[in-house]
Amino acid sequence: MAAPATAPRVGIAGLGLIGGSLALALKEARFAVALHAWDPDPDALQRGLDAGVIDAPAADLACLADAVDVLVLAAPTQACDALLRDLISRPLQPRCVTDVASVKAPLCALADAADAAFARRFVGGHPIAGSERSGVGAARSDLFRDHRVILTPGRATEAAAVHQVRAMWLAAGAAVSEMDVEEHDALLAATSHLPHVLAFALVDALARSPRRADIFRFAAGGFRDFTRIASSDPVMWRDISLANRDALLAALDDFTAHLGRLRSAIEAGDRDAIEGVYRDAKAARDEYLQNEVPAARGQRGGGGSGRNAQA
Amino acid sequence: MAAPATAPRVGIAGLGLIGGSLALALKEARFAVALHAWDPDPDALQRGLDAGVIDAPAADLACLADAVDVLVLAAPTQACDALLRDLISRPLQPRCVTDVASVKAPLCALADAADAAFARRFVGGHPIAGSERSGVGAARSDLFRDHRVILTPGRATEAAAVHQVRAMWLAAGAAVSEMDVEEHDALLAATSHLPHVLAFALVDALARSPRRADIFRFAAGGFRDFTRIASSDPVMWRDISLANRDALLAALDDFTAHLGRLRSAIEAGDRDAIEGVYRDAKAARDEYLQNEVPAARGQRGGGGSGRNAQA
Repeated sequence: MAAPATAPRVGIAGLGLIGGSLALALKEARFAVALHAWDPDPDALQRGLDAGVIDAPAADLACLADAVDVLVLAAPTQACDALLRDLISRPLQPRCVTDVASVKAPLCALADAADAAFARRFVGGHPIAGSERSGVGAARSDLFRDHRVILTPGRATEAAAVHQVRAMWLAAGAAVSEMDVEEHDALLAATSHLPHVLAFALVDALARSPRRADIFRFAAGGFRDFTRIASSDPVMWRDISLANRDALLAALDDFTAHLGRLRSAIEAGDRDAIEGVYRDAKAARDEYLQNEVPAARGQRGGGGSGRNAQA
Repeated sequence: MAAPATAPRVGIAGLGLIGGSLALALKEARFAVALHAWDPDPDALQRGLDAGVIDAPAADLACLADAVDVLVLAAPTQACDALLRDLISRPLQPRCVTDVASVKAPLCALADAADAAFARRFVGGHPIAGSERSGVGAARSDLFRDHRVILTPGRATEAAAVHQVRAMWLAAGAAVSEMDVEEHDALLAATSHLPHVLAFALVDALARSPRRADIFRFAAGGFRDFTRIASSDPVMWRDISLANRDALLAALDDFTAHLGRLRSAIEAGDRDAIEGVYRDAKAARDEYLQNEVPAARGQRGGGGSGRNAQA
């Protein structure tokens, strides 16, 4: 089955786990008439070419942008920022530009502040998927299948651009939602960025304890899962923490106030209050498990390190 | 291979996951000359008998205590407390008494305050193992294999009693350590009780958010693992939180101070300080994974609910 006549040329800037998996998924779905890619690491590009993940390499971001209809900035938050600035400064752009970063406000603000011709082409995007592995060698065509992708179009974004990016993620097997950019960042602060901060802070606090050796020697299975995300990439998470600072601090303060009330209940020996918190939490989590999209259940990493992707 | 002539008669009070698994492991190792059990739920006892997990049921705790040399109180913290009080009030006791509760100070204090004849027989114990399933039907003979068991003998405890309990857990395949009771409770507060409190508090805070529906709809895989322990039994964890209140509050305050410093670094945009915390945490966790006892790696629960055991 050939790609339909209107199939776009897709360009992927950043050929890591996310970019490589998207390329594979789009190839499998025959979504694109051609898959171009650029990566600052020539080895990644060559590996992608050798493995048939992409059709054609580009010499730089400008060449890639010139060669395609849809351009995906497939890099972490901080790198996406630099790529987007570079792109905005150029005279010609692809018909449609999107990204995969886990914090959306800074990128969407950049696009909004660009000239109207750019702003209408840009659709912020965030696939909520990842793996404990990274790099194009770990790419899988089913990484996004039944996972959620959130799009955050701006006021200036054209409907045609949103339609194009939505069609691309649907072809990759994802469930696509649209959301206000502030809503997205507040949501991810609560469900992803705050848990990472708590896990990093807990493990670091324990590592500085005089009991450090025994703490890690006698830790149980619950500790292992609770702290899995503390094995994530420190630089990427530093950048996410800063890019989403306001929403993260708001979520953190809300949590800290809640934790303070629980602390008071424990100190006062208030059995009903303690049990109430634990019971409501268990009920909420059990309900969450029942409503989870099916693939998320099958995608739990069994490996030792944290999932480094922008989940 | 028959049990050696000195093989003890072992009694298990509480035939759930932990008690049932210990019975199975001791049977497999031919450690006991006879395995007796009592449970407040007659059905559990009958299921254990039908499945060949135990040799003989006892009518009540007093009958069980009379029939055995080594008595294991295999119940959660609060229930162990009641069983131990009951036992102490009786005129005759087995040669050796131990337990499996995850908080040791209250039980060990009870034993210390009993008459000298009881205090010398009692050895506090805590197997750091569990499963997301519960009940005797979920019992497995390898539940403790290569898992750690911490014993907390008191000043009055006889060496022979410690030797007996240690031999029992070694026969079940565990790695046995001895530790001061306060040290045990401080350690477990840090590695198990505090993470549970944080997970319960986070999920409950999110469940009370006006964004609740979207939060649980768009949560990623990291959230699932981070909050797994929030699916644990609310009543058991209320009791643990109160039984280990002082050590738990100390660990919580230490964590909160640490989190406050990280919050300040994020607010101030101090990139080096943030990255330093994340980097040290990742290094500590990666080191912990490398030094983990091998079985813990294979024992990660794939199921949806939390491990309810006293890990």
